[in-house]
Amino acid sequence: MQTTSAIFTQRRVVEFHETDAAGIIHFSNVFLWMESAEMAFLRDRKVPILSISKTTGRGWPRVAAGAQFMAPLRFEDQIEIRLWLGDVGDTSIHYRFEIWRMNGPGEPECAAAGEMTNVYITCSTAGGKLKPTRIPADVREKLK
Amino acid sequence: MQTTSAIFTQRRVVEFHETDAAGIIHFSNVFLWMESAEMAFLRDRKVPILSISKTTGRGWPRVAAGAQFMAPLRFEDQIEIRLWLGDVGDTSIHYRFEIWRMNGPGEPECAAAGEMTNVYITCSTAGGKLKPTRIPADVREKLK
Amino acid sequence: MQTTSAIFTQRRVVEFHETDAAGIIHFSNVFLWMESAEMAFLRDRKVPILSISKTTGRGWPRVAAGAQFMAPLRFEDQIEIRLWLGDVGDTSIHYRFEIWRMNGPGEPECAAAGEMTNVYITCSTAGGKLKPTRIPADVREKLK
Amino acid sequence: MQTTSAIFTQRRVVEFHETDAAGIIHFSNVFLWMESAEMAFLRDRKVPILSISKTTGRGWPRVAAGAQFMAPLRFEDQIEIRLWLGDVGDTSIHYRFEIWRMNGPGEPECAAAGEMTNVYITCSTAGGKLKPTRIPADVREKLK
Repeated sequence: MQTTSAIFTQRRVVEFHETDAAGIIHFSNVFLWMESAEMAFLRDRKVPILSISKTTGRGWPRVAAGAQFMAPLRFEDQIEIRLWLGDVGDTSIHYRFEIWRMNGPGEPECAAAGEMTNVYITCSTAGGKLKPTRIPADVREKLK
Repeated sequence: MQTTSAIFTQRRVVEFHETDAAGIIHFSNVFLWMESAEMAFLRDRKVPILSISKTTGRGWPRVAAGAQFMAPLRFEDQIEIRLWLGDVGDTSIHYRFEIWRMNGPGEPECAAAGEMTNVYITCSTAGGKLKPTRIPADVREKLK
Repeated sequence: MQTTSAIFTQRRVVEFHETDAAGIIHFSNVFLWMESAEMAFLRDRKVPILSISKTTGRGWPRVAAGAQFMAPLRFEDQIEIRLWLGDVGDTSIHYRFEIWRMNGPGEPECAAAGEMTNVYITCSTAGGKLKPTRIPADVREKLK
Repeated sequence: MQTTSAIFTQRRVVEFHETDAAGIIHFSNVFLWMESAEMAFLRDRKVPILSISKTTGRGWPRVAAGAQFMAPLRFEDQIEIRLWLGDVGDTSIHYRFEIWRMNGPGEPECAAAGEMTNVYITCSTAGGKLKPTRIPADVREKLK
């Protein structure tokens, strides 16, 4: 578990369609929640997420993602997604996440933890190679 | 239920992530399966589905979709999606579908039925209005 | 479009994973959003949504769902889901929805409209037939 | 990349709803595909995946999942999911996966690689703690 405070948090309720026949959430939703929090964070910092002009696309595709699942989450659980910014490299950015269950009889519980590494890319519009590209100075500034 | 034979069918098994906490499939998957069968049908007929060039995009966005759910489907059920082609208009195309459960103790059972109306559109690449466009003659020929 | 005010509304932002390669939302998300608003409405009215005891399950599976898609929605659009309660029958309940895009240069725009019919069912836990069941009087009261 | 042959493979085509507005697959689908291949493997080996009786549920929830994404996949790409069985512990099982793009101008390309660790659990039906449970001898035999 992280020992510093998260720099960004997001709350949501577990939706019905996020559950599976085992009666708990399907693990794939943890990755959707991590991405959702990441994008809310970037929006909050006024960092463009996906931009596609007539000639060029820019974005942040993931090159790695992983998670551990410590406790099951169920329909209607209130969750908080906590985000930490890790290394910001020349062309990549690293995030760490925790998903906490905020409701229930006892203390909040850390149900999942994960991380993602994204690469800043440019590409020509309408297909073409995704080229890792140096993160612009103004974006770097906003992330601080 | 349709009284003629389907012009295209597709088989699949119900995936775990398609179920929900009620122990049956989440209804939204019926719409994904209908689209999957439609696209396999178009591929089979060599009709381009989505094409994006430097200046122009072409595709078949849905303008209407609906379904009835007659029987629950469960994890690992073997299903068959049956497709009928309805009206092919100047700019639109109409499909009807049935989802049959093929396994189980008795006869195959019709678990869901639905329909979709798609419009053939062109748009300028990188955003812009989607313009309903006359379905080209060669596409019309392939659909027959 | 509905001529009375919605009895319940919910706001959300279009998530990245809700888009597709045509650059707009995948239509299936409209059905997820309608269900999400329905469940937030039931929660708000303190109507139990899914309850599974040792012997009996109770829930509201959909028997029909449909939607029309009038305007494309894109990543990061701010949307409002508006809900109207239609007929409440002996065992079924009918909802109507509209999805409005709230951001953008001009007026809010109605991007989609849909409806769903749900049936109140009971079943024995661990599989078994879903039996349409009379909606209890206290639930009926809360829905008014 | 793995140096031995996969013990199980599964083919599929990239579906339209698996793409996102960047024009490539959404990374979360890699996790769905890994699970789909795992479950097809278990089915092939006649290992029960999820069983829920009146009193007890048994299943294989994930405790960890991770992936690296090396090359983008696009709508209609033909993919092959390759599965390797890693350690089978007292209560857990470890899988490694690769996702290969089989179509295209050149050689097949490894687009993603991942792994998952699942724990065999039992729980009382209708909620309750998930208890890690020794993998039964007959299951162990089938996995060999």
